[in-house]
Amino acid sequence: MKKLKIAVIGYGNVGRFTVEAVNASTDMELAGVVRRAKSLKNTPPELSNVNVVSDIDELGKVDVAILCGPSRSVPELAPIYLSKGIFTVDCFDIHTDIYDLHEKLDELAKKHGVASVTAAGWDPGSDSVVRTLMMAMAPKGLTYTNFGPGMSMGHSVVARSKKGVKNALSMTIPCGAGIHSRMVYVELEKGYTAEKIYDELKADSYFAHDELHVIPVNSIDECKDMGHGVLMERKGVSGITQSQRFKFEMTINNPALTGQIMVACARAIVKQKPGCYVMPEIPPMDYLQGSKESLIKALI
Amino acid sequence: MKKLKIAVIGYGNVGRFTVEAVNASTDMELAGVVRRAKSLKNTPPELSNVNVVSDIDELGKVDVAILCGPSRSVPELAPIYLSKGIFTVDCFDIHTDIYDLHEKLDELAKKHGVASVTAAGWDPGSDSVVRTLMMAMAPKGLTYTNFGPGMSMGHSVVARSKKGVKNALSMTIPCGAGIHSRMVYVELEKGYTAEKIYDELKADSYFAHDELHVIPVNSIDECKDMGHGVLMERKGVSGITQSQRFKFEMTINNPALTGQIMVACARAIVKQKPGCYVMPEIPPMDYLQGSKESLIKALI
Repeated sequence: MKKLKIAVIGYGNVGRFTVEAVNASTDMELAGVVRRAKSLKNTPPELSNVNVVSDIDELGKVDVAILCGPSRSVPELAPIYLSKGIFTVDCFDIHTDIYDLHEKLDELAKKHGVASVTAAGWDPGSDSVVRTLMMAMAPKGLTYTNFGPGMSMGHSVVARSKKGVKNALSMTIPCGAGIHSRMVYVELEKGYTAEKIYDELKADSYFAHDELHVIPVNSIDECKDMGHGVLMERKGVSGITQSQRFKFEMTINNPALTGQIMVACARAIVKQKPGCYVMPEIPPMDYLQGSKESLIKALI
Repeated sequence: MKKLKIAVIGYGNVGRFTVEAVNASTDMELAGVVRRAKSLKNTPPELSNVNVVSDIDELGKVDVAILCGPSRSVPELAPIYLSKGIFTVDCFDIHTDIYDLHEKLDELAKKHGVASVTAAGWDPGSDSVVRTLMMAMAPKGLTYTNFGPGMSMGHSVVARSKKGVKNALSMTIPCGAGIHSRMVYVELEKGYTAEKIYDELKADSYFAHDELHVIPVNSIDECKDMGHGVLMERKGVSGITQSQRFKFEMTINNPALTGQIMVACARAIVKQKPGCYVMPEIPPMDYLQGSKESLIKALI
């Protein structure tokens, strides 16, 4: 069997764990890692045997590009790879913008005869599949998604991007029934205050809707733990039978799970017809290695 | 939009709840219920405005037949409907025979240009989807599926079919790590003992592998509760990151959930290419009513 050639785009937290997950998959081969030109001088030791380039064309044939940079870079980057005839996977997590991105990438992917999975992390992503399944099992009712406590990578990146913030860590704290607060720990530049950062964050759509606390600390590094969790609950009606209860819970290393899910999506997306997909549009069995016979016998 | 015309085949517990779920779905219409000829005289009052027939041909155009009889009748019944060009859904639950049935129905469905979902209850069925997803999130590791405490409809039907058993109720008791015992409550015919029934059940593949207790009672009806539950747990590895933990739990009315899932599968199966499918082979979003846009905005 021919191995899938994977390029990992970006080498932050998610990129690092994605490289590990590609290397752990016997049906894949890491074609290389694409980084910004200025990062090429600082290649970390674990990539010493890996092609690290600033332009994907230097990697030869690539089947799937897994986009591991910040969400906000996805709408710009995914079209570049799709236009080259390369399948893409991303973990874009700005919930309100997913449908528009999906439609835009769908058109482009079809034009170039390839396919793309967007929003393929754990939320949005695998959690979206669980929400869909719970909805199928009890069409009427309410689902609550409770996150944390854990570090939100997306929110931490946004907090770090604010002027006056040397380093930041945004913790998501579950308050029950899908309500959360954000505890943002910051290393401040001289002349900046927690109040000022609070105002800037509140003006950002990432933070506008939740209770927010900004807490100055001396060292972000000393607070950092990449563990995260989720608790999804649905109580609903099957047919006309009330009070059916469903719960999905996980405790995970956040970037490790994100990387693993994107790798499973890379495997699945090359089996789909041209177009853009979110995870609930993909047959779950396509994420897995193995023959149909062995999978049906093991999982059903 | 044209409503899907559904025939419900069999009117035991699952059939009754399936009729309720069809009636609760605004995109479907109950074409009728198919029962054995000898049952037609005893039509229950809630079916007084429903076409109840012994031959599906009397119902006119039917899109999907939902098979609600015992599992053991599925290999015989599904081919009859597929050969008529009718899509089928069943909740066949004899795990070891699913792959063979899948292959047999796959060939037949393709021949007649229709599609079929087999093993589409909650286990096998929606639990299989969760197991598949957990495997995608942590490819190495162990999944435990713990059932109950709750009545197993399949096992109760088999116990009732044994000579000397007037009525029976088989309870599944979880012992942890996927190990279960079966507590079978029986109303005995004169001249039969619990020991004799125990031996007969132990010789049946449905009961051969679990710890078994047969308990005589005066009235099954007084012990009956259709609540059931499941707890699935996986601890595994994402990439090379250990100890990722996942849990899916539900507490449900068993036949109500089975009926609802089969109704969701009826909606999904008419969107698939000809062939036979288990639930992990179907894009989860196909189970739901609504436009792609509204579903992506609500669920992702």
